Amino acid sequence: MKIAVLGYGTVGKGVDRIIRERVSGVEVARILELPDRLTDERMTSNFKEILGDDSIEVVVECMGGLEPAHTFIMDALAAGKSVVTSNKAVVAAYIDEFVRQANTTGACLLVEASVGGGIPWIASVEKVRRIDEVKSFYGIMNGTTNYIVDAMVKQGADFDDVLREAQELGYAERDPSADIDGIDVRNKTIISVGVAFNTACEKDIPTTGIRTLTKRDLDVLGEKGLSVKLLGRGVQADGGYAAAVEPVALPVRSLEANVPSNFNLISLDGTTVGPLKFYGQGAGMLPTGNAMVQDVLDFAAGRRPHYDFSRGLEWRPELLTSDYVYRTTAEVEGAEPFAEGMVVLRGLTAVQARQTFERAQEVDPSTFMAALSQED
Amino acid sequence: MKIAVLGYGTVGKGVDRIIRERVSGVEVARILELPDRLTDERMTSNFKEILGDDSIEVVVECMGGLEPAHTFIMDALAAGKSVVTSNKAVVAAYIDEFVRQANTTGACLLVEASVGGGIPWIASVEKVRRIDEVKSFYGIMNGTTNYIVDAMVKQGADFDDVLREAQELGYAERDPSADIDGIDVRNKTIISVGVAFNTACEKDIPTTGIRTLTKRDLDVLGEKGLSVKLLGRGVQADGGYAAAVEPVALPVRSLEANVPSNFNLISLDGTTVGPLKFYGQGAGMLPTGNAMVQDVLDFAAGRRPHYDFSRGLEWRPELLTSDYVYRTTAEVEGAEPFAEGMVVLRGLTAVQARQTFERAQEVDPSTFMAALSQED
Repeated sequence: MKIAVLGYGTVGKGVDRIIRERVSGVEVARILELPDRLTDERMTSNFKEILGDDSIEVVVECMGGLEPAHTFIMDALAAGKSVVTSNKAVVAAYIDEFVRQANTTGACLLVEASVGGGIPWIASVEKVRRIDEVKSFYGIMNGTTNYIVDAMVKQGADFDDVLREAQELGYAERDPSADIDGIDVRNKTIISVGVAFNTACEKDIPTTGIRTLTKRDLDVLGEKGLSVKLLGRGVQADGGYAAAVEPVALPVRSLEANVPSNFNLISLDGTTVGPLKFYGQGAGMLPTGNAMVQDVLDFAAGRRPHYDFSRGLEWRPELLTSDYVYRTTAEVEGAEPFAEGMVVLRGLTAVQARQTFERAQEVDPSTFMAALSQED
Repeated sequence: MKIAVLGYGTVGKGVDRIIRERVSGVEVARILELPDRLTDERMTSNFKEILGDDSIEVVVECMGGLEPAHTFIMDALAAGKSVVTSNKAVVAAYIDEFVRQANTTGACLLVEASVGGGIPWIASVEKVRRIDEVKSFYGIMNGTTNYIVDAMVKQGADFDDVLREAQELGYAERDPSADIDGIDVRNKTIISVGVAFNTACEKDIPTTGIRTLTKRDLDVLGEKGLSVKLLGRGVQADGGYAAAVEPVALPVRSLEANVPSNFNLISLDGTTVGPLKFYGQGAGMLPTGNAMVQDVLDFAAGRRPHYDFSRGLEWRPELLTSDYVYRTTAEVEGAEPFAEGMVVLRGLTAVQARQTFERAQEVDPSTFMAALSQED
């Protein structure tokens, strides 16, 4: 089977290398690159050449960013070519449009690498859904923020120092906002809602990152036997669904609390299989490349993931309700004391919790918030 | 697709129920049951009727035990019918013979449910192997012993009390030997070696259970920041492999140490994907039934797992070398003090550690041993 790779950065090189060294029966026949970087006879800077090549069955998009990735994916699907992508931003933004386009031509959208890097999360969710409903999912989906929190706990260091260290190690971007403000996890949560619940997810789900988390917060929660992780969560029931991205305070003896370094851990709850958890490298050239090549091999073996978002689940925030702790100098109406400098509000939806957080941040920009996991 | 179910106990009923309620395109057309229990028109007590029915493509063996399961599986494979089984004892004992027989007729042996219950372990290992070598695997593969150790830690109770409680809850058999002496994990380790390394595994790998573990051992190791779990392990390198089943002392902040109740957690290390971990219910009617139905659906979708054990890896115990702690009143030659009442021997293979354990047990039958995980 012949495929084309769009973009020859870290991930594109990883895909090319894994296929060359480890896979038979698949050939990277064309590579889309910038005009001044055409160093290989397979390379072209003209996407139309790839689109017009009928021998190419699958296009592997490794460019990142919204444009031109969005246009190229739409064009490939319209031309009946299936698309493998690790680009969570473009998939989260346009998944409905991609799914509709794919269904007009019978092409497939394969997004394993867009959530959880090398972890077989998307294919496992699809497999579970052959038998079960996925009732809910939640997980550590961002390695950078897990690295930061883990290092803060283990080194007793504060946020800014650890962020700087993560940037030096290449675990965090120079502009870390997509990671630490939860945008990256929001994209992965939106994609997971689509795959797990077969429904088009709201784009503006409540999203709170860990930018204001301090060493002191971890110490205070630690004394209560709690650790903090940034989680993406989704739940469905009775024709409705809810989803959110927020810091969650979990028991220190939970698996989530013990995920080290930049690893990810994503869980689901299925009707008959019960709880399943999947752990691994959420990013990196080889793990992400591996996930994309797995999608290519699945397609070659006849797997045809089909989403139509026909469930039409209703957005129902009350399905995701927790107690929330706030560390803020602002007044929080209705709150009870929780720990030194922290108060708790009982039974908020994630939407209400986010609104409360935003009001408190207007008074005290250093405000921190976390949902209390129900196991605590 | 028509299938037959052999045995209508807990697991057989689970498979029948899941297919009836949740799956289309698959029909449980025949059920093998004892002559005095034929309560359903699909039932027969004559296996030859099922063997001779050309419309049956897959036989789902849910009988347990070695015979007649072994004979029926061989006959089904010889007749070109693929076999799905959760029976780890029969698969571990006869996997070489089954694989040879399957390869003569093109039938498949599907063993997802034999390791890790509802956890998609076997299919994930196969998927990883499409691209990577599985360099090693290890895991909590027995829910009963995990339940016992977890309850001992959390309740501060001793082994016998917790075992009795587990028996009352149905988590442990009246004769608990297969679980607490590591036989069940040995079977699952032998199967995992076959699937992960494509090699026929030694049947008498070093196997030590947790029968002699005491609350005091957990307290002493706990003071060193260690927890104990019964692990099955396998490793391959440079044309050789090793495997063992033994208690392992792991850091209390490892994921393994925090696996609660009767859950399982199994890990592998792949060349490009890196470490992956899979967590879920390792037993039970619905999770095990789910795994068997997943195998049926995979087969229906064209998955044809093929093992030929052609690697011919050499048994090389030195590939699995650790430091071992012993709690014994026997003299252990070459040992250094480790903790109150415990000594440590450095750099033993699992085979040597087991021999040392057996010698110590001759003097002190209450001797306990654990490998020290390399992360500690």
